[in-house]
Amino acid sequence: MRWPGSRTGCLRCRACFDRRRAASEQTLTPRTYAKPLTNLIDELSKLPGIGGKSAQRLAFHILSMEDGDARAIAEAILRAKEEMKYCSLCGNLTDTDPCGICSDEGRDRSMICVVENPRDVAAIERLKEFHGLYHVLHGAISPMDGIGPGDINLKQLILRLQGNDDVKEVILATNPNIEGEATAMYTARLIKPSGITVSRIAHGVPVGGDLEYTDEVTLSKAMEGRRIL
Amino acid sequence: MRWPGSRTGCLRCRACFDRRRAASEQTLTPRTYAKPLTNLIDELSKLPGIGGKSAQRLAFHILSMEDGDARAIAEAILRAKEEMKYCSLCGNLTDTDPCGICSDEGRDRSMICVVENPRDVAAIERLKEFHGLYHVLHGAISPMDGIGPGDINLKQLILRLQGNDDVKEVILATNPNIEGEATAMYTARLIKPSGITVSRIAHGVPVGGDLEYTDEVTLSKAMEGRRIL
Repeated sequence: MRWPGSRTGCLRCRACFDRRRAASEQTLTPRTYAKPLTNLIDELSKLPGIGGKSAQRLAFHILSMEDGDARAIAEAILRAKEEMKYCSLCGNLTDTDPCGICSDEGRDRSMICVVENPRDVAAIERLKEFHGLYHVLHGAISPMDGIGPGDINLKQLILRLQGNDDVKEVILATNPNIEGEATAMYTARLIKPSGITVSRIAHGVPVGGDLEYTDEVTLSKAMEGRRIL
Repeated sequence: MRWPGSRTGCLRCRACFDRRRAASEQTLTPRTYAKPLTNLIDELSKLPGIGGKSAQRLAFHILSMEDGDARAIAEAILRAKEEMKYCSLCGNLTDTDPCGICSDEGRDRSMICVVENPRDVAAIERLKEFHGLYHVLHGAISPMDGIGPGDINLKQLILRLQGNDDVKEVILATNPNIEGEATAMYTARLIKPSGITVSRIAHGVPVGGDLEYTDEVTLSKAMEGRRIL
């Protein structure tokens, strides 16, 4: 169904709606832009949460920036990719090995907080309440996704505890969802025989949520209310 | 007001709210991240519509990408900045000079569509209905912001029309706001003496919109611009 003389089609039927939508999705790589611009839009739209329209807006903004500012973004990406690595002790993201937290003499070496990823380390560090060390698992046990205990940084934690008499408590701060709970239970069972106290952050954190986005009051309550397993 | 033992403060009073907000704004450059990562987060958060949290999410995503993919983004930024320039004829963004539209022999050289910026060219090109040439003003006259006729790409348009007998019509497609209207009126007055037809895109109710929710100025323009069927 089309109106005579119209290329946009009618506003009612499904076929015309689909055609219009397909046309508007072409904005991702409009042929009207020159190649370097199209390429930039394509690359930006691969980032999470950035669709075709946002990528276009960002690309035009980058083109309108000072040369030095645009180069700074590109160089920050390259430098971060080049210099950032994982700490060989705790698995946190760092540019030195061991990382700043592991090599800090002032930290309490009797406590290790186990988290799923480096963003969780940052979330807890922001509280300025925990002064121990960390261990980053880089994931959680998830049989549904085929991720077993051997696929996360768990063996390294056990080895770390075996060669170390300083550690008195391991705080399990994995995410409060099914995978995180399973990982906490499994880890607790592994560590308990060694006599080290194992605790889990309290269920002040909303179940099903994501540690990274939890507000600080809740996160702080969860740290305070941890219980001996 | 604080809870004993808590550093996060209560959830009710303004002072604690302000303190929490100030703390959460520190997420922009958390001291817990290594320098290259902090730097990347800083650079990304300079982009429009990308706040501290989004920048953090993007940065972590970039770190988790394949080396080649991350390098592709950085290189796309550098290449776009290097190769993209403005067409010396129409002012559109291009990687060749003159641009693809200006140098296309198949375009109708009797019509020039005047727009505010290259994104508007892309918007009109997407229609595939206009086959003339463009002229990009790179802004609009705005006395409030101290932008006069001399600050936009207007002189170039007049020069272009003077040395050219092919042009029969200039379509003013500047934005339908105060600055765009002022620019259209000013441009029309400059061109009219030369005898070239000057037109302005129609104002009216947007297709697919709701008459009930259309603002009064638009509705009044739509009534004014009614056409005999």
